[in-house]
Amino acid sequence: MTGWIDRQTQAAIDATREDVAALHAELVRYGLVVWTGGNVSGRVPGTDLFVIKPSGVSYDDLTPENQIVCRLDGTVLEGTPGSDRSPSSDTAAHAYVYRTMPHVGGVVHTHSTYATAWAARGEAIPCVITAMADEFGGEIPVGPFAIIGDESIGEGIVATLTGHRSRAVLMQNHGVFTIGTDARDAVKAAVMTEDVARTVHITRQLGEPIPIPQQSIDALFDRYQNVYGQKPAGELK
Amino acid sequence: MTGWIDRQTQAAIDATREDVAALHAELVRYGLVVWTGGNVSGRVPGTDLFVIKPSGVSYDDLTPENQIVCRLDGTVLEGTPGSDRSPSSDTAAHAYVYRTMPHVGGVVHTHSTYATAWAARGEAIPCVITAMADEFGGEIPVGPFAIIGDESIGEGIVATLTGHRSRAVLMQNHGVFTIGTDARDAVKAAVMTEDVARTVHITRQLGEPIPIPQQSIDALFDRYQNVYGQKPAGELK
Amino acid sequence: MTGWIDRQTQAAIDATREDVAALHAELVRYGLVVWTGGNVSGRVPGTDLFVIKPSGVSYDDLTPENQIVCRLDGTVLEGTPGSDRSPSSDTAAHAYVYRTMPHVGGVVHTHSTYATAWAARGEAIPCVITAMADEFGGEIPVGPFAIIGDESIGEGIVATLTGHRSRAVLMQNHGVFTIGTDARDAVKAAVMTEDVARTVHITRQLGEPIPIPQQSIDALFDRYQNVYGQKPAGELK
Amino acid sequence: MTGWIDRQTQAAIDATREDVAALHAELVRYGLVVWTGGNVSGRVPGTDLFVIKPSGVSYDDLTPENQIVCRLDGTVLEGTPGSDRSPSSDTAAHAYVYRTMPHVGGVVHTHSTYATAWAARGEAIPCVITAMADEFGGEIPVGPFAIIGDESIGEGIVATLTGHRSRAVLMQNHGVFTIGTDARDAVKAAVMTEDVARTVHITRQLGEPIPIPQQSIDALFDRYQNVYGQKPAGELK
Repeated sequence: MTGWIDRQTQAAIDATREDVAALHAELVRYGLVVWTGGNVSGRVPGTDLFVIKPSGVSYDDLTPENQIVCRLDGTVLEGTPGSDRSPSSDTAAHAYVYRTMPHVGGVVHTHSTYATAWAARGEAIPCVITAMADEFGGEIPVGPFAIIGDESIGEGIVATLTGHRSRAVLMQNHGVFTIGTDARDAVKAAVMTEDVARTVHITRQLGEPIPIPQQSIDALFDRYQNVYGQKPAGELK
Repeated sequence: MTGWIDRQTQAAIDATREDVAALHAELVRYGLVVWTGGNVSGRVPGTDLFVIKPSGVSYDDLTPENQIVCRLDGTVLEGTPGSDRSPSSDTAAHAYVYRTMPHVGGVVHTHSTYATAWAARGEAIPCVITAMADEFGGEIPVGPFAIIGDESIGEGIVATLTGHRSRAVLMQNHGVFTIGTDARDAVKAAVMTEDVARTVHITRQLGEPIPIPQQSIDALFDRYQNVYGQKPAGELK
Repeated sequence: MTGWIDRQTQAAIDATREDVAALHAELVRYGLVVWTGGNVSGRVPGTDLFVIKPSGVSYDDLTPENQIVCRLDGTVLEGTPGSDRSPSSDTAAHAYVYRTMPHVGGVVHTHSTYATAWAARGEAIPCVITAMADEFGGEIPVGPFAIIGDESIGEGIVATLTGHRSRAVLMQNHGVFTIGTDARDAVKAAVMTEDVARTVHITRQLGEPIPIPQQSIDALFDRYQNVYGQKPAGELK
Repeated sequence: MTGWIDRQTQAAIDATREDVAALHAELVRYGLVVWTGGNVSGRVPGTDLFVIKPSGVSYDDLTPENQIVCRLDGTVLEGTPGSDRSPSSDTAAHAYVYRTMPHVGGVVHTHSTYATAWAARGEAIPCVITAMADEFGGEIPVGPFAIIGDESIGEGIVATLTGHRSRAVLMQNHGVFTIGTDARDAVKAAVMTEDVARTVHITRQLGEPIPIPQQSIDALFDRYQNVYGQKPAGELK
């Protein structure tokens, strides 16, 4: 995709810019990020594009206009607002997810404290509270150690989450990546990941949690996917 | 109760809508909830109705008008503002409490971190600080494991709290339910539950707390129920 | 002191009301209190009066006008704004301190989390960080278990702090009382108590702190009392 | 440098005052300081001067005008705004760093909770998360125990950080000092120090972290220094 952008695509890009810029504030509100760490992206519906945070810019300074439009190979779409800046240093990982998981509409990355602590020990978070069964349908798994610079982070995310109920993965020694039907859904998963990471950590500080029977986990997950909230037709979660 | 609502009932509904909507902000202020989790309800005085939060709506978007009026069987009162939306997924539990505990005027549910950690281990919080003796008159008990979908959560709350001084119950692997004379009193109980859950957790991280003699717990609870605060006649706590 | 209040006393009362009302916001800012717990009082300079928070009133609703003027025996000074309300349920303890420690101009009480955890184990906080040597000149001691209703709390505070460098005492199973040259100084002591209680707790979670030599503690305390800050003549700390 | 200040120097001083005053708000935002503790300073580019916080002044009351201009020997530059007040009690340590490390443009000092806990045990923070490899290139080291009053704190900072990748040092039993290319860079280092101190602490509460191979640490540090962010030519980090 180069050059000319039709009116409908432009409107979809603009709406995604608004969403992505605004959703970064949720990462701040829930204390998931410090300084310029962390990033949210959203697929532009009906296109092969996604919108992502610029690299190293303060959360106070994020606007719809300085979000960056990228193609699914991770390159910046030239001639669009923000295209003179560098996108998030995690852009390659986001791009890999969008290319290989077509049902994913949003990706979030944080180093939120409790989730990163589980990741640094390389331990999955066990599903011992009902809110976690609702949201993740079981444990939150650990992905491989992989460093920035090639496709190994993206590959690790996709390999771990493919066929898994969880929308969150703890990348070993690194932090969290979450996926969702759109950027908002991925942000919700990031918020819930830190919440359950913290609650289960604190549980285990003074003893072992009581397990939840698998059939109860299944029942909770099934119900939450289908009943909870004010759901318009067509939304998956 | 259907159809026509007299002026006095309407005024009572409107006042309860205001209270319930506003009290949700206290859950946010004290960090007891994330995203759309948690809920507050209040009985409409002089009626067989209660007002509760809509399901899956952001705390930022709660207003008196989008709170939902329900009958004591948990069904939505048609033809009232908000009645086109789904009430909180915990509505059945709230309704069960109002039906079986007529002195209860407010119910709150949260997954607040420290209280939920005690619940995940299935441990009651021991009464080792005087603020807890004041507010709860002893330990905060654990209720059974019960999953959403029938009356088992409501039954578990009522079975645990009946005849108990505590206005709070830790539902195993789930979270907290609190009751009160009105919605504000139940919110206070939810705030104090997390506060004492946290303080006693932190106490025990480095050793065992010194027990408080039972007669001192009794004296503190008695005094606090009868002396503390600026109390109008007729308020129980 | 009854009835007629001269103009100078009135101005001193009004100024103390302003200070005491405003300083409560610092307890909220630093997370030392929840709901209506905690209280600040200040001696009215040049009088046998002090100003204290009303009982059971929300921090949002505190104003200079609803603070309550009390005599040193803990009774409310009739005919002054706020005198139709009950003062803090801890008023007797504050009054005891003002009566027996004439150099004290401010008293604060909180149930702040980490300090109360030390109090619930009945352990003094050891002086292992230089900020604690600066501010408290050594450990923060534990006072006796005493329940509200007579002078035993006030006696326990005074017995523990008399002849001690610390301006803070951990009342066993209860919480913190701090004293200061004025209300602001006592609030500072309450803020620093929680800060060092938290830091030393977290230190000990993963091992033992390195002790600070007594002569270094003495040197730091001496210096901080005499050099730090922008100090007008006559202020003690 | 005394007396007459040329226009260019004056402009540089004014800009540094603005930066230093504003950056103190970041210490508050990230919870690194309480009351009047902590301080930021910045070298005035092209001069032998630096700007630092006044001693014992509330964070609410900091303005560009009340920051204090000092020479590299730590004395106050007379005749400038703020010069009638005392500079931070840590001024001698900042001055020592500026005198002996000419590439340093900013210094920050805090007693932030988790970092100070590591310092109180005298333990370096091991590099077990990728964000720490990015930012610090390895462990955050411990400096000697040294008390205020002579040059021993400054000497300890410089001795520990010379030849070390880390821009942060944990001064034993005391707190954190960070350095940077300018005041903002030093503040970022202080924020990241507390963030990694907390994450690694929480990691170790429930087991041992998985080590990161040295070659991965090296690769991450190298990449972050050279690729991350929107970097104008000439900025070092």
